[in-house]
Amino acid sequence: MSVELTKMAGGVAAAGFRVAGVRCGIKRKRRDICLLVSETNAAVSAAGVFTTNVVRAPCVDWSESRLAQSGTATAIVVNAGNANAGNGDRGETDNAQMAQWAADALGVPVETVLTASTGVIGTPLPMALIAAGIKDAAARLVHSPEAASEAAEAIMTTDTFTKEYAVRFVLPSGTAVTIGGMSKGSGMIAPNMATMLGFVTTDATIAPNVLRTALVEAVAESFNCLTVDGDTSTNDSCIVMASGMAENPPIDRADTADYCAFADALTHVCVHLAKEIARDGEGATKLVTVRVSGAASVTDARKIAKTIAESPLVKTALFGNDPNWGRILAAAGRAGVRFDPKQTTAYLAGVCIFAHGSPTVFDAPALSQAMKVKELTIHVDIGAGDAEAHFYTCDFSYDYIRINAEYHT
Amino acid sequence: MSVELTKMAGGVAAAGFRVAGVRCGIKRKRRDICLLVSETNAAVSAAGVFTTNVVRAPCVDWSESRLAQSGTATAIVVNAGNANAGNGDRGETDNAQMAQWAADALGVPVETVLTASTGVIGTPLPMALIAAGIKDAAARLVHSPEAASEAAEAIMTTDTFTKEYAVRFVLPSGTAVTIGGMSKGSGMIAPNMATMLGFVTTDATIAPNVLRTALVEAVAESFNCLTVDGDTSTNDSCIVMASGMAENPPIDRADTADYCAFADALTHVCVHLAKEIARDGEGATKLVTVRVSGAASVTDARKIAKTIAESPLVKTALFGNDPNWGRILAAAGRAGVRFDPKQTTAYLAGVCIFAHGSPTVFDAPALSQAMKVKELTIHVDIGAGDAEAHFYTCDFSYDYIRINAEYHT
Repeated sequence: MSVELTKMAGGVAAAGFRVAGVRCGIKRKRRDICLLVSETNAAVSAAGVFTTNVVRAPCVDWSESRLAQSGTATAIVVNAGNANAGNGDRGETDNAQMAQWAADALGVPVETVLTASTGVIGTPLPMALIAAGIKDAAARLVHSPEAASEAAEAIMTTDTFTKEYAVRFVLPSGTAVTIGGMSKGSGMIAPNMATMLGFVTTDATIAPNVLRTALVEAVAESFNCLTVDGDTSTNDSCIVMASGMAENPPIDRADTADYCAFADALTHVCVHLAKEIARDGEGATKLVTVRVSGAASVTDARKIAKTIAESPLVKTALFGNDPNWGRILAAAGRAGVRFDPKQTTAYLAGVCIFAHGSPTVFDAPALSQAMKVKELTIHVDIGAGDAEAHFYTCDFSYDYIRINAEYHT
Repeated sequence: MSVELTKMAGGVAAAGFRVAGVRCGIKRKRRDICLLVSETNAAVSAAGVFTTNVVRAPCVDWSESRLAQSGTATAIVVNAGNANAGNGDRGETDNAQMAQWAADALGVPVETVLTASTGVIGTPLPMALIAAGIKDAAARLVHSPEAASEAAEAIMTTDTFTKEYAVRFVLPSGTAVTIGGMSKGSGMIAPNMATMLGFVTTDATIAPNVLRTALVEAVAESFNCLTVDGDTSTNDSCIVMASGMAENPPIDRADTADYCAFADALTHVCVHLAKEIARDGEGATKLVTVRVSGAASVTDARKIAKTIAESPLVKTALFGNDPNWGRILAAAGRAGVRFDPKQTTAYLAGVCIFAHGSPTVFDAPALSQAMKVKELTIHVDIGAGDAEAHFYTCDFSYDYIRINAEYHT
């Protein structure tokens, strides 16, 4: 990254948006309604990337089609604790009603309000609670770090910590710009869907189609490199809004220095938010980055990285601090990419564990000890080219089973 | 199945082959060397299907290339407790030596001896033990149900029970024929590979290329529909040998009634052996069949069935006896096949849990109670066509984590 980024307080509010996170009672204890609104209630550039799951919640269809039509939005309303998925026609009506209430409270057209829901599926939204929650949130909208943290809490399900991040940097053309966001992940709620949500704001002036290009790039390097258990959900959404308050010369093409700096910073923010989700994966004790290099194509590298990152055998070995090169190599080998094990080198926590078709002589107890950390990297080089890719994941513990087996629908 | 099958005793020896399973000391307690030989030590029709993993043990390359050259074999020598994978050039030499010792003991050409290994990877084979074990086994070769069971034990790693099955049936042309086999699976050994092995014998007279066609068909419906954790190994092998002792009119084409009856019976035997592996999956408390119907193609149906069968969220719900339709639908939805949830119906343990885009009203506690069985079926119909497929799997329990995390390399 060539542009210097300065970490900021304020999460999703850092870029000047007004936010509120309140509790309306969908969740037992935590805040559960979030409103995120452009500073002047005006429609601003916005873009989104949504779940590829065939089974989708109404909020996903709603937000995607609104953004496809206009490339702008005034606000996002999010509820946590109920995904409003699998609720048939009623779900669609309830979702539209939720958008309408937010629009009414803000005095903006309903078509400019995006929606997101996460939590239980197959249970109708408690609409009376949501109506009250939206009113409450609208009355509390403010541009402050505290409100941003409350909003980050209000999108959580069983996440164990809030996920926020913001940076400030100077565009090559001279204007200082902020990008801030929040995410939630792999916590699950009865009957248990892992919903990934990400919301990012910026004060940059950027055209909707270019913003979308930057988001697609950023998501490809971040949320799309994230796996806890391979289960994408009905509600996965990542939305970015750009207020233009920084008053930089508009970024309206993707081949400019300003665009590159902006896209790099957006990617950096999204990577941070994605890694936080992996770190907070269900039952996770470690954040694990799987890096695959030396591939003939990025597609090949991604296939291998994803297969290693999703392998239950690799993930249980990581939990057990077991330097098990055999499982890593075997997972790589079944990824659907031809490669020569004799050209392959593998590293675990920085130690070379496999080279020239055989395991190296390494100090297994020492390496096991070195694996007892919060964050480590698996690196496999298949010696077939120059392409590389990475995936973020976590280990697989007893708590994963506990969390996912001991709940009853 | 149109041909009536009669279950037989004798496992892999039922079809008249001589077998022995002895202990040479690779494993701590159990038998660990198996010899399987045609009754007269003559080369007979043989075919094999091998792992698609890029990382392969020398035995896989050896057996595959021997079969590709001749389509015949006299014997298979198997050791358990050491996979002889990831051992570089030494592994290849040791594998060839193992075949040579078996050939010497039997007085047959080394090119006619197939090999298979399962167990620890990255540790050289203990050749002195293996030499003694092969001699011992060769001296004990016999055609008996007891010897077949000893052989089935000698191919196990951490399997909790032996897997044997044999049937007898009458070919449409009038001759009675036997097919019998043994398998081992998802038990893992330090440093922990799940090796699937299957060995099947028959006394049918059948040409090598036709035998291979029948085996490919049978494996597609059985071992290739099997997943415990999605990790294929370096050593997976399924080999069939046909002695011709039944003296039926030779099956030398794949478009005859005799072929169809033979292939059906072989499939039946392989399905039984594959299901036994799922039932004995690591930490498994249930054998689960995932059936997907109403697909536009078998490929589509297989993709969905495999994704459901491998979903950790589905598998933990099965362990917890949680009738969680949401996880099943969400897994189906991310399989990479377009379908309409509103045309989709899902059944769990025979109870309809999802229809017309919404969950049905079902008695969740009663269904949870009904899930407390050793064997159940998930059935999803996507209402898009006539094709269907199935997958065999097991649930995902605390013991899976224990078995796979608490070992140290």
